[in-house]
Amino acid sequence: MNLTQKILLAHLVEGKMAKGEEIAIKIDQTLTQDSTGTMAYLQLEALGIDRVKTELSVSYVDHNTLQQGPENADDHKYLQTVAARYGIYFSRPGNGICHQVHLERFGVPGKTLLGSDSHTPTAGGLGMLAIGAGGLDVALAMAGEPYRIIMPAIVNVRLKGELNPWVSAKDVILELLRRLTVKGGIGKIFEYSGDGVKTLSVPERTTIANMGAELGATTSIFPSDERTYEFLKAQGREDVFVPLSADEDAEYDEVIEIDLSELEPMVALPHSPDNVVKVKDAGRPRVDQVAIGSCTNSSYMDLMKVASILKGKTIPEHVSLVIAPGSRQVLTMLAKNGALADLIAAGARILESACGPCIGMGQAPATGAVSVRTFNRNFYGRSGTKSAYVYLVSPEVAAAAALTGYLIDPRELGEPPQVPLVERFEVNDNMIVKPPEDGKNVEVIKGPNIKPFPLNTPLSDIEKKVLIKVGDDITTDHIMPSNARLLPLRSNIPELSKHCFEIIDENFSKRAVEWGGGIIVGGHNYGQGSSREHAALVPLYLGVKAVIAKSFARIHKANLINSGILPLTFVKEEDYEDIDMGDVLKIENTVEQVRSGKNIIVKNLTKGKSFEVRLEVSDRNREILIAGGMINYVKSKNKTN
Amino acid sequence: MNLTQKILLAHLVEGKMAKGEEIAIKIDQTLTQDSTGTMAYLQLEALGIDRVKTELSVSYVDHNTLQQGPENADDHKYLQTVAARYGIYFSRPGNGICHQVHLERFGVPGKTLLGSDSHTPTAGGLGMLAIGAGGLDVALAMAGEPYRIIMPAIVNVRLKGELNPWVSAKDVILELLRRLTVKGGIGKIFEYSGDGVKTLSVPERTTIANMGAELGATTSIFPSDERTYEFLKAQGREDVFVPLSADEDAEYDEVIEIDLSELEPMVALPHSPDNVVKVKDAGRPRVDQVAIGSCTNSSYMDLMKVASILKGKTIPEHVSLVIAPGSRQVLTMLAKNGALADLIAAGARILESACGPCIGMGQAPATGAVSVRTFNRNFYGRSGTKSAYVYLVSPEVAAAAALTGYLIDPRELGEPPQVPLVERFEVNDNMIVKPPEDGKNVEVIKGPNIKPFPLNTPLSDIEKKVLIKVGDDITTDHIMPSNARLLPLRSNIPELSKHCFEIIDENFSKRAVEWGGGIIVGGHNYGQGSSREHAALVPLYLGVKAVIAKSFARIHKANLINSGILPLTFVKEEDYEDIDMGDVLKIENTVEQVRSGKNIIVKNLTKGKSFEVRLEVSDRNREILIAGGMINYVKSKNKTN
Repeated sequence: MNLTQKILLAHLVEGKMAKGEEIAIKIDQTLTQDSTGTMAYLQLEALGIDRVKTELSVSYVDHNTLQQGPENADDHKYLQTVAARYGIYFSRPGNGICHQVHLERFGVPGKTLLGSDSHTPTAGGLGMLAIGAGGLDVALAMAGEPYRIIMPAIVNVRLKGELNPWVSAKDVILELLRRLTVKGGIGKIFEYSGDGVKTLSVPERTTIANMGAELGATTSIFPSDERTYEFLKAQGREDVFVPLSADEDAEYDEVIEIDLSELEPMVALPHSPDNVVKVKDAGRPRVDQVAIGSCTNSSYMDLMKVASILKGKTIPEHVSLVIAPGSRQVLTMLAKNGALADLIAAGARILESACGPCIGMGQAPATGAVSVRTFNRNFYGRSGTKSAYVYLVSPEVAAAAALTGYLIDPRELGEPPQVPLVERFEVNDNMIVKPPEDGKNVEVIKGPNIKPFPLNTPLSDIEKKVLIKVGDDITTDHIMPSNARLLPLRSNIPELSKHCFEIIDENFSKRAVEWGGGIIVGGHNYGQGSSREHAALVPLYLGVKAVIAKSFARIHKANLINSGILPLTFVKEEDYEDIDMGDVLKIENTVEQVRSGKNIIVKNLTKGKSFEVRLEVSDRNREILIAGGMINYVKSKNKTN
Repeated sequence: MNLTQKILLAHLVEGKMAKGEEIAIKIDQTLTQDSTGTMAYLQLEALGIDRVKTELSVSYVDHNTLQQGPENADDHKYLQTVAARYGIYFSRPGNGICHQVHLERFGVPGKTLLGSDSHTPTAGGLGMLAIGAGGLDVALAMAGEPYRIIMPAIVNVRLKGELNPWVSAKDVILELLRRLTVKGGIGKIFEYSGDGVKTLSVPERTTIANMGAELGATTSIFPSDERTYEFLKAQGREDVFVPLSADEDAEYDEVIEIDLSELEPMVALPHSPDNVVKVKDAGRPRVDQVAIGSCTNSSYMDLMKVASILKGKTIPEHVSLVIAPGSRQVLTMLAKNGALADLIAAGARILESACGPCIGMGQAPATGAVSVRTFNRNFYGRSGTKSAYVYLVSPEVAAAAALTGYLIDPRELGEPPQVPLVERFEVNDNMIVKPPEDGKNVEVIKGPNIKPFPLNTPLSDIEKKVLIKVGDDITTDHIMPSNARLLPLRSNIPELSKHCFEIIDENFSKRAVEWGGGIIVGGHNYGQGSSREHAALVPLYLGVKAVIAKSFARIHKANLINSGILPLTFVKEEDYEDIDMGDVLKIENTVEQVRSGKNIIVKNLTKGKSFEVRLEVSDRNREILIAGGMINYVKSKNKTN
């Protein structure tokens, strides 16, 4: 067996480990960050358990740390108190980026980790099977539910040779992105092996695993070996070490080979992480900003390399250099050994240990600026400046750009930085709050912007008006817009609901309230775009009972089911034409019709006609819908057991 | 003579130094910060000079450093290039708070300093005569114009004795605020003397001078003595030292005595800096946040005290501690000597060296939170959280609050912190950009949000419609609102103009454009509130030629004159009643009538009536109005010379 199969098998709860089959696996650890965490914990509260059932759950704060109004600090306080209430560790604001801190202080080889952040696979560098998921999935995992996925294809990435000076782990994953594109990893797990692996330290492996997310991969994983032991020992956690690797004769669905010694410094050009070329072929653009940090490249080793390159130098007048160390551990070590002073002396602006500019939280470049970043995504506009040109590179390339003011091949600088291996990291967990043994009496504090999670009621007969009729390709951005104005409201479904569909119909929300909920009628590919749960939670809050469409986007359909909203498709597409906004639709014996698996009859009382719709979901999903959504389903199942 | 008189006399250009008389003084140095600086430099550009005529002008960036969109970085780039063009030093973002850096690197005893920031008097701690002013005043000073003020009363603050352990310079100024209130310093300069002065280091003196601004004072000043020499020598700038003090028999308008040895730790309770009590009488509120920094208390000495108190300790779980060192010099020294590592280890979140939370730029407390801050203002809502309770204290009291989680008298902690005197500060000016000898060929880069400064035309006959008729007590917030949405537009008068008067009439701006400008009719106290220049610049941009009101607020009237808009008052208040929006008003032979000094005749063509108005301004102001505002006046005067 390969390593992935071994870990999956050890955690298998349901299903057969054959590619394409649904399997359910036990989750050992969970992590959340603050921007998705508030909703995940509101959902956890709704599940009605007393204490999390995972081996370890950690709540981090790393996204909304600028705090321009009370919403952020209120969210932090909620996250801290709800963590204490349910037995969850809480990493305080300023303690660092979730993935970096989890790696340092909590990750365990061979364990499963589910996180409400797409870069959760970072921990794969430590030999964990680490997967990113939606908030409700993570809440369910904390409540002890197994996590369901379609068994992915396992891709073996065989590394051979060793990286040359000035070439970095970042270049390995940029090379993979160049070869496979951002869609190349969908439905796949990337398992690394080969002689080259042992030349990479754990922080280097995590850079690769982290940015495997940009391939669209389910996750990436490295073996747990002597380098893993060395890292854990330097963290004072050698007791959790277990050696892990694929069997000699392990089989894979696909094999990719990379010769590390052939790699050169790479760069992802604007505006996609797979728009990769060699740095020497990038045309030496003049650089306005260099940003170093993020969950991809903010380890002690990364920042020591940068400090070594910049020591005793001064950045040019036209360059703004910003550095956000990945964790308080990294920041402390740099502060103690003088490297931070070197960085400051060279002209670096030191930001708090957090996601910061990577998620557009500050340090937006100037209009039309070239920004060279050690981050993982350079999507159009993500930096906060739509006209900016963002390049993704290694810390070495970033430091060379900061030093010279141009995007140059760092090998031009001559002698590469020498960074000594760390025998002992600076361990200080005093900003990680351990939950009390019994949290039942902890008061969970919800600021005025944090509103209870909307919960559906068990399915009953439906007689409701059509609230809106929309065309094809409606995205989650149409249903529930997300922008700087609305982001602080992510914990507040009632307030968010006022903006539902506002891009196409500003009266939608008001009408939904006046009509006491209703039904949405849509065209093809309804709900495409992001995985945003809020695009289902808000309609649930507004009393939407069913969406009848020509077809659905996969993730949104799943979110509707989780919310207890019927995702129905027209049997005859032409029936779409016969419906208008305000028509009263009736579904009789709804529970029986849903359970039957047959076509469902919808009566249009206004038009005096009937038409048929399909509910194309699994039997388990039918029961979830009948229960009134996933949370009610789990609660009722727990009650029965 | 007292010290103030000596410096004023040495700089006197016009007028008699008698209390209440207008005097004009030469300005040696200017400073700007970014939030007022962009407009000041747009005005400087409009003045048409080639190079600043001051001995030294410095442009700082310390306000808008979070950069959530391109506007801030665009402003920084404009400030950097316009500084190079006109011979101005540019302190790069991250280099620190203007007042702290100016003190460290540029301040000179006995010189005059005009700054477009209300805390410019900070430099009074170094024996400078340092005054805060509007952007246009600073632009004029850079163009070589003298600065005009009404000769203030000189108050002598005699300090005797020495501060006890745990009592701090901050407590001196809090005691003064307790005694005099926030209005107690209006029209006054506070000059410190007495044996107690020599017990205070320059950074301590600057804390006192800084927060003299909260008394409403014109400025505060300390003598230049051996402590001043010691500070300048530690900065490697002993060459600029001159000894300065009042004559033995100097006379003052008022004398206040403070016995330093009798002071105890003080606190300004919410929501005013003069709401001062002893800390021991403040009721020990539980503290949610502690914020250390700002131009008042972010010196090396201040932060070393905090580090010494927190070393080896951990802050409680419920406290968020944020620290923004005042300058890169301070940050570097803390990073080099291990104090920064101590602060981080204790749980502090380290922010960039900038104004930060003091001006509501981040770190807004949670809803209803208690925030203890070393800052200078605790106005309602200023923190970004309207429901927060902000307390102003010394660094010692802040550290004690961070350590215990309660606002306690720090003397309860026992042994006071010992902070060694600094013999040599860490000097590194590589983030201060020196202007080229000749800047004529420097390209000034204006991002898309930076629009040219609106310039009026010389006065001519007026025949315009009444654009709006408003009642009494209209504030500058009515005329030109300022909020988080509009602040990034401070460099963009055309965009701001779309929001002119929007609070009371959302069609105002559109109408002004359609009608090709016009006249505003107001009641009593028109233009009260802030000193915001934008409340005159925006009407100027929209073509407003005159405001006819029952009476004007003083500063807004001055701003109207500077903008070339006639501030006219009704001779008979009842004439106000006879005017309606849309009436066409005509002033014939406007230039002659304005120059005459007599009542001016206004014809209401719509109503077929005439009425008289007064123009109550100095002869010089009449010439400014005739020239089309201050900038045209100065330009035409320069041309004549």
